Amino acid sequence: MKLLVVGSVAYDAIETPFGKTDKILGGAGTFISLASSFAKADVQLVSVVGGDFEKKYLDLLKSKGIDIKGIEVRENEKTFFWSGKYHNNMNSRDTLVTELNVLGSFNPIVPEEYKDTEFLMLGNLSPDVQRKVIEQMNKKPKLIVMDTMNFWMDTMWEELKKTISMVDVISINDEEARQLSGEYSLLKAAKKISEMGPSTVIIKKGEHGSLLFQNERVFFAPAMLLDSVYDPTGAGDTFAGGFAGYLAKSGDISFENMRKALMYASVMASFCVEKFGTEGLVNIDQNAIDERTTALKEMISF
Amino acid sequence: MKLLVVGSVAYDAIETPFGKTDKILGGAGTFISLASSFAKADVQLVSVVGGDFEKKYLDLLKSKGIDIKGIEVRENEKTFFWSGKYHNNMNSRDTLVTELNVLGSFNPIVPEEYKDTEFLMLGNLSPDVQRKVIEQMNKKPKLIVMDTMNFWMDTMWEELKKTISMVDVISINDEEARQLSGEYSLLKAAKKISEMGPSTVIIKKGEHGSLLFQNERVFFAPAMLLDSVYDPTGAGDTFAGGFAGYLAKSGDISFENMRKALMYASVMASFCVEKFGTEGLVNIDQNAIDERTTALKEMISF
Repeated sequence: MKLLVVGSVAYDAIETPFGKTDKILGGAGTFISLASSFAKADVQLVSVVGGDFEKKYLDLLKSKGIDIKGIEVRENEKTFFWSGKYHNNMNSRDTLVTELNVLGSFNPIVPEEYKDTEFLMLGNLSPDVQRKVIEQMNKKPKLIVMDTMNFWMDTMWEELKKTISMVDVISINDEEARQLSGEYSLLKAAKKISEMGPSTVIIKKGEHGSLLFQNERVFFAPAMLLDSVYDPTGAGDTFAGGFAGYLAKSGDISFENMRKALMYASVMASFCVEKFGTEGLVNIDQNAIDERTTALKEMISF
Repeated sequence: MKLLVVGSVAYDAIETPFGKTDKILGGAGTFISLASSFAKADVQLVSVVGGDFEKKYLDLLKSKGIDIKGIEVRENEKTFFWSGKYHNNMNSRDTLVTELNVLGSFNPIVPEEYKDTEFLMLGNLSPDVQRKVIEQMNKKPKLIVMDTMNFWMDTMWEELKKTISMVDVISINDEEARQLSGEYSLLKAAKKISEMGPSTVIIKKGEHGSLLFQNERVFFAPAMLLDSVYDPTGAGDTFAGGFAGYLAKSGDISFENMRKALMYASVMASFCVEKFGTEGLVNIDQNAIDERTTALKEMISF
């Protein structure tokens, strides 16, 4: 089945203890689409970029089989730009620059032929933009997955709650889950968040793995143990993209299949963090994916 | 098979955001012994207390089937006392008081009838005290498990390395593993620590679960998701005790059985943190242990 992805396509400039980049390809929509394309999902991307956005990046997305006709190019404006600096051990980061540019007035137009797409993945964006996408669909998709972040909890609480009430799966990190629910216990947090609408709650804990909650069921996927992490940028988006892509490819949204999708998501995120930006996601060998999937299963085989 | 436990039996006074205790039963040897007694291991405890140590606590240990003839009582001295205060969400604590008392000159004497014990669990103690115990054994036990902490890395590095080189399993937390190895990646850390001697390395990550490394194999046990954590004191000792007790009871030290032992350890630690001090460990229903074991397995069933 097809997967409609809505999310930013951006320029990032990243500094980590391992190095520094100029403007490179970034954005939630980019990471999500790349990750889901590896799951062999049929991906359609809705986004917006400026006239400064390099053609080679659009070509890269196309080369991965991603349908980019939903990317609006505003020739006289500039692409969304984010710059950040990670501290020791990557556990915290400072945002150095955020230039919204085209994203500031992003009004997503879902192309007619996308409006029946069965799987919808809403990357981290303003909750009203996310909702506008849902409202353009001809019918409720089989599964809507959303990502969000603390910024929207701080600034657009009511809008955010409204959007959350319309989705099936929410994917957020542990701090965000705690902020959203007001509960420190992730068990309680997931329960409260589920009462806000989503029947499935994913809580990402970075190097500590991820949790999948649905009704009384819980599944835990560990994170791959890696020799080193170069750049965590996009890991959460990659995770969400791997999850949604896996489900869309199979068309199966059972809890059993979601377990597998979570493991797949964890594997994809492990590739993302090993290189700067999207570099780790551009060329992944299917054998490498299979090997890591086997290693991850082995870690929890009992 | 029998399990010889060496570790402190102490008084603790604990303050957490949920409350405050007077002097209550504590000490690594206590938590380890209690946890391993639930695994139905045949536990012998070597320790030292002062004349101020209440008989009811010795009776408690005895009532759990723990052989306490190796606990030396020094009538004219005082029991080891530790007091600590946990901050928000239990992620950090301050030590308020440490009175070594009898522990300052602890010279463990292993009773003759314990010297052939097949399983030896060395609780967190000065590494030279730990080594003295190993050296008193008639022959190398089938399995020696040790716990330690950053304090000994800071103050007795050479002694610590010597003791580590003599054990089969080391159980430490993630920060300690990083300090001991000089590696941030836990994968690299475990490899380096294993080169120091122990064929098996356990890295505890508190609420984030625990890792078991042996040669190229890795197993991950999640932590139970709990509604609330009242007091983390003794959780690491309880974990180690559950692990060693499970292995001693079965007599099987294969990696497969160690996976099961790690899950058991995680379950025992979950009971520990739900109440103050040893309270959570005193009366655990076998059904409750079984239920949590099932829930934990379910969390990683794939």
